[in-house]
Amino acid sequence: MLKIEQLVRCNRRLLQNVYPLVSGDFTSHCRKFSSNSENKNKNEFSYMNDSRNNKQYVLPLLSALGVSIGVGIYYFSNRNKRTLIAASPCTEVESLGGQPIRGLPLYTLKDVAKHSTKETRIWVTYNQGVYDITDFVDEHPGGSIIMMAAGGALDPFWLIYGLHKGTAILKMLETYRIGNLSQKEAKDNIKDVNDPYSADPKRHPALIVNLTRPFCAEPPSTILTESFITPAELFYVRNHLPVPEVDPAEYNLTIGGIGVKSTEMSLNDIKQFPKHTITATLQCAGNRRMEMAKVKPMKGLSWSVGAMGCATFSGAKLRDVLISLGYDECNTKAKHVQFEGLDLDPANNPYGASIPIEKAMDPKGDVLIAYEMNGMPLLPDHGFPVRMLVPGNAGARSVKWLGAITVAEEESNTHWQRIDYKGFSPSTEWENADFESAPAIQALPVTSAICDPTENDTVKVINGKITLKGYAWSGGGSKIVRVDITPDCGKTWYVADITNQETKNAPHHWSWSLWKAEIPIKTKDSSIEVWVKAVDSSFNTQPETFENTYNFRGVLANAYHRVRINLKH
Amino acid sequence: MLKIEQLVRCNRRLLQNVYPLVSGDFTSHCRKFSSNSENKNKNEFSYMNDSRNNKQYVLPLLSALGVSIGVGIYYFSNRNKRTLIAASPCTEVESLGGQPIRGLPLYTLKDVAKHSTKETRIWVTYNQGVYDITDFVDEHPGGSIIMMAAGGALDPFWLIYGLHKGTAILKMLETYRIGNLSQKEAKDNIKDVNDPYSADPKRHPALIVNLTRPFCAEPPSTILTESFITPAELFYVRNHLPVPEVDPAEYNLTIGGIGVKSTEMSLNDIKQFPKHTITATLQCAGNRRMEMAKVKPMKGLSWSVGAMGCATFSGAKLRDVLISLGYDECNTKAKHVQFEGLDLDPANNPYGASIPIEKAMDPKGDVLIAYEMNGMPLLPDHGFPVRMLVPGNAGARSVKWLGAITVAEEESNTHWQRIDYKGFSPSTEWENADFESAPAIQALPVTSAICDPTENDTVKVINGKITLKGYAWSGGGSKIVRVDITPDCGKTWYVADITNQETKNAPHHWSWSLWKAEIPIKTKDSSIEVWVKAVDSSFNTQPETFENTYNFRGVLANAYHRVRINLKH
Repeated sequence: MLKIEQLVRCNRRLLQNVYPLVSGDFTSHCRKFSSNSENKNKNEFSYMNDSRNNKQYVLPLLSALGVSIGVGIYYFSNRNKRTLIAASPCTEVESLGGQPIRGLPLYTLKDVAKHSTKETRIWVTYNQGVYDITDFVDEHPGGSIIMMAAGGALDPFWLIYGLHKGTAILKMLETYRIGNLSQKEAKDNIKDVNDPYSADPKRHPALIVNLTRPFCAEPPSTILTESFITPAELFYVRNHLPVPEVDPAEYNLTIGGIGVKSTEMSLNDIKQFPKHTITATLQCAGNRRMEMAKVKPMKGLSWSVGAMGCATFSGAKLRDVLISLGYDECNTKAKHVQFEGLDLDPANNPYGASIPIEKAMDPKGDVLIAYEMNGMPLLPDHGFPVRMLVPGNAGARSVKWLGAITVAEEESNTHWQRIDYKGFSPSTEWENADFESAPAIQALPVTSAICDPTENDTVKVINGKITLKGYAWSGGGSKIVRVDITPDCGKTWYVADITNQETKNAPHHWSWSLWKAEIPIKTKDSSIEVWVKAVDSSFNTQPETFENTYNFRGVLANAYHRVRINLKH
Repeated sequence: MLKIEQLVRCNRRLLQNVYPLVSGDFTSHCRKFSSNSENKNKNEFSYMNDSRNNKQYVLPLLSALGVSIGVGIYYFSNRNKRTLIAASPCTEVESLGGQPIRGLPLYTLKDVAKHSTKETRIWVTYNQGVYDITDFVDEHPGGSIIMMAAGGALDPFWLIYGLHKGTAILKMLETYRIGNLSQKEAKDNIKDVNDPYSADPKRHPALIVNLTRPFCAEPPSTILTESFITPAELFYVRNHLPVPEVDPAEYNLTIGGIGVKSTEMSLNDIKQFPKHTITATLQCAGNRRMEMAKVKPMKGLSWSVGAMGCATFSGAKLRDVLISLGYDECNTKAKHVQFEGLDLDPANNPYGASIPIEKAMDPKGDVLIAYEMNGMPLLPDHGFPVRMLVPGNAGARSVKWLGAITVAEEESNTHWQRIDYKGFSPSTEWENADFESAPAIQALPVTSAICDPTENDTVKVINGKITLKGYAWSGGGSKIVRVDITPDCGKTWYVADITNQETKNAPHHWSWSLWKAEIPIKTKDSSIEVWVKAVDSSFNTQPETFENTYNFRGVLANAYHRVRINLKH
């Protein structure tokens, strides 16, 4: 297994020489993913295999992103394996959607432009396809932002929201198809659009890429338990928009809202506040979606267990900053603190999210305006030069490339707050979901994972035992009090040793707990399934399966982690 | 169904005329319990049925407790039903234990008194039995307190710790049997002991009694959802020792410990602090043990879903009182705040428990030194005149009849803190449990229950639907965000309407949420099993079953609540 130190060292010579990385122990890790490729729901997802043409995919990718061939090859080899495992309909498939269809009427861009309201019907184009999406706009998961494309082309928007270029969405789009556009006009639609992702930074090749635009990637799980502190280069990345280029000398944070004196702060201004360093685990609300997607296909990135990491973050306490600007804790009008990023969508609207005022102002809530990660300036992918850190909460609330803070009565108005990142009952679907009344995800539930071995690994039984390693964590400041492992589907449970854990007490314990378990093997079977569940300081534990906690967004996927391994007796 | 108002009104005339209560709608509720009596684990628990003789039991009970015949009859009729449902080995069975056994040597009290140390072997007597318990003392769940009986009789202690008089413990005791005591000496052992429970108050006859000494009882579940605020008379009671008689004019609270000026406070002194009123749900950590006990028999009271209630509590904030006595929040030596009750064990040691200093000092933690419940002075069973209220935590930490508060480095040294009320892994048993390292239960996990209908009720399908009512709650200040119901074992989930909920936000939401659900019935089956699970503001949810969360103490029993009901189509 390639160790973290090697990987971080490798990163420095990435541009000079990446090829050697894709070899040895590290490629054996890749092979693990490859061996996962058995698709248990073949009928449901077989279209994904059919529609994939790796060469078609990887070549435009390389040119479009301008990354090195080494990274591309790594990406290709891993990416290919991941899509076979996952049930995500969000895979990028360039070959689908908007191909001319014989027998449909030919429209011009001028024709399309006449259809931009519900009254005139709402038309859009994608590639050479023309679509009447009037009946869809109210159901659009991203909300009214879709109306920006009304009477025009989707293509420039989807350059930013790359998530749309998945089989499921492209297929759904075709159900609204009404006509064709000429090849020339389709090209005109995108010829003046610069690649919004061209300024994205180089990434560490060890990251397993889930989506390139916006960039979303996780480290291999076996690396996660190597170190209590995850190196920033290997920390999962979940961007929602292109990475903005911010000059720290020009950096400006706008602060205002209820009970707060409107202010602009430079990076240096922020650094004048007492510097606090917090060790915290961040987790994407969609971590482990890959497992939940086995119940039913769903929208969202196909994360394995690695959309999670633990780092130290240093910065000013949001509480200190707000109080310095006159905020009075007895203020009862303020309910939320909204954050805006400097990352912009095609209409120049920033990424945004909010947290409840209770969390923001809790003297022990440790919400930071952070400018360092693991003692260094933030990396571009992690919010350089300034990001929020909201420990205990879903990663989506720790807004990166922080541009503005607003104390408000209402939650952030972005769809990331109001629509995305919400949990629903298993039988609720997009069509009948009441996004308005469902609460936004803030604190995350207890979870755990077996990081090493991974699915289908072969493990040697030594002195009648096998060794497992993994993580456990609970949101909201809860601390892990126990990790239980069973090698026989719950007949026998063993308590794992917690090998790394901070001493801080609940409910202000933000970091994860790493564990190790030596499990007696009493069977002579050639393979077993091992399960892990964690228990936190409120004695909450994980649900047993995903069937009864399924939600159509695939968030909050915290059921027992189950890994099938081969035994070498 | 008898309504709460009626029940409370009835209480006032309890001593004059109790008989009418045990009739009409209320007895039909009792019948519900009766119809629950199917014992699914007949093999495991059949000894309980064999050993029970209701007449033998109820007559000594009536004379010993001196309660009215009306209460006795109610108690008897309910008690009988409950024991058939439950799997608890802790049922009081007077006829077992200490009967003379032919062929064993006859010892005198003098002989026994020579065996009071490990070196001389530790002997005790119970009734006419003589036992060598040397090999058991280290395993005693109650800790070293057992050594107080070394060389003497258990009988006076068990008058207080009535829980011991259960089949399982009496049977286990017999495995240490070495001889007999004469009948005369056995009588001498208890003749001078006054009944320590003679001063216990009268209780509301609607309470379903789990244990009389100490008194432990819960209201029928159907009553719980009648009102957001549970009347004090119907609030579950979980006493650990006899109820002390405290004269409020003489009441004295001793406060001291790390960083605090040692003080005595009268009730009037406490009332000088700002009065805060908190609505909070209290729950026994063993609530719903009855369900977990179906997995495997266990020690502990056989609670149904009613060891839980919601009330307003008024009093001084512990934080305010400690700060007034000089406690500095920056003190890093203090780790716990210990509470002692005025209820005493046979050696005059009080009931005691502690909470972490973080909870005690949290400005929003709402820990109260409470002197009112639902706007009235506390009832004797609920801690008159002063008790702790630790909202969000296990009821055991809200120490009643408060006698002392001590800020300390260590947890309370009582076995209720150090041994009882701890959670363990499913495969851990008494013998291999590490009580030292297991954390004491403080905040409780998310739970919910269907309160109406109850098991085996017949429910009319009206317009294709049935109506269910119940509660949901989560400890640690979490708020319920959703309650899911399934009438078909998880194939379809319906979201219940939350009918009563406070607006306070997590993590400072202490009260429960009442819910109601109208569930479509699509089956023609004559009976179905309905399940409920709740989701809290950290999106923690309940475990599906008790099998994988079983613990030998039967605490933290928060799996899905499942109720089988008959349908009238």
